[in-house]
Amino acid sequence: MFRKIEHIGIAVKNLDAANAMFGALSQLGLLKTEEVETEGVRTSFFKLGETKIEFLEATNSESPIAKFIEKHGEGIHHIAFDVEDVEAEKQRLQDAGFEFISTEIKKGADNKLICFLHPRSVNRVLVELCQENL
Amino acid sequence: MFRKIEHIGIAVKNLDAANAMFGALSQLGLLKTEEVETEGVRTSFFKLGETKIEFLEATNSESPIAKFIEKHGEGIHHIAFDVEDVEAEKQRLQDAGFEFISTEIKKGADNKLICFLHPRSVNRVLVELCQENL
Repeated sequence: MFRKIEHIGIAVKNLDAANAMFGALSQLGLLKTEEVETEGVRTSFFKLGETKIEFLEATNSESPIAKFIEKHGEGIHHIAFDVEDVEAEKQRLQDAGFEFISTEIKKGADNKLICFLHPRSVNRVLVELCQENL
Repeated sequence: MFRKIEHIGIAVKNLDAANAMFGALSQLGLLKTEEVETEGVRTSFFKLGETKIEFLEATNSESPIAKFIEKHGEGIHHIAFDVEDVEAEKQRLQDAGFEFISTEIKKGADNKLICFLHPRSVNRVLVELCQENL
């Protein structure tokens, strides 16, 4: 079961410029920035109530974020939903016929265990399942 | 100041199919459906913690949702942020140089007063300011 929206991920070309823009827009302070080398991204987070806004900048041309921007331009990249047990949810959703980009559970930014459904299963929305990695 | 994510809006071709899909995906129950005639949309809401997922289906070919789907296909359409006073926030953001699609404040779905920033001001994200209309 989905418990809350953990974050919304937005692909940008320039993380520092996006941070300045969103600070001015929302009047919120930057929570943190973090690089995820395995995914080829630099990320920043703004906390907003129980959820977060994440900006993602590619650190190399093979990064999924570089490919997304090349194809679609900047914009909303994914919605991450908080789940108690990402492995159990993945199994439940596979059994229900939902497709995954990869069924491997990875370590993502912000100390999370993550897994992505395929957008074709979700009205072309990229959905991330996200478990707090305690 | 942005207080929380009020909802995320997702443009779909078939609202009933999207509701069935998202119910199976999230294991959440449908909160309500509502038609906003002035915007040419039929909407549905799922409550998820302090925020909501909104699906939007066009009811005519002139609807902004029909035009969005024609151009981009289905997918995430906008993020709505809850603000205390939409008029004051609009003024603050205009003074800060942010552009709006229209500066007219309208009555939206779910008893809200709303106003949309232009995506070119926000890394190509369509941002809605949203005030509870008490």
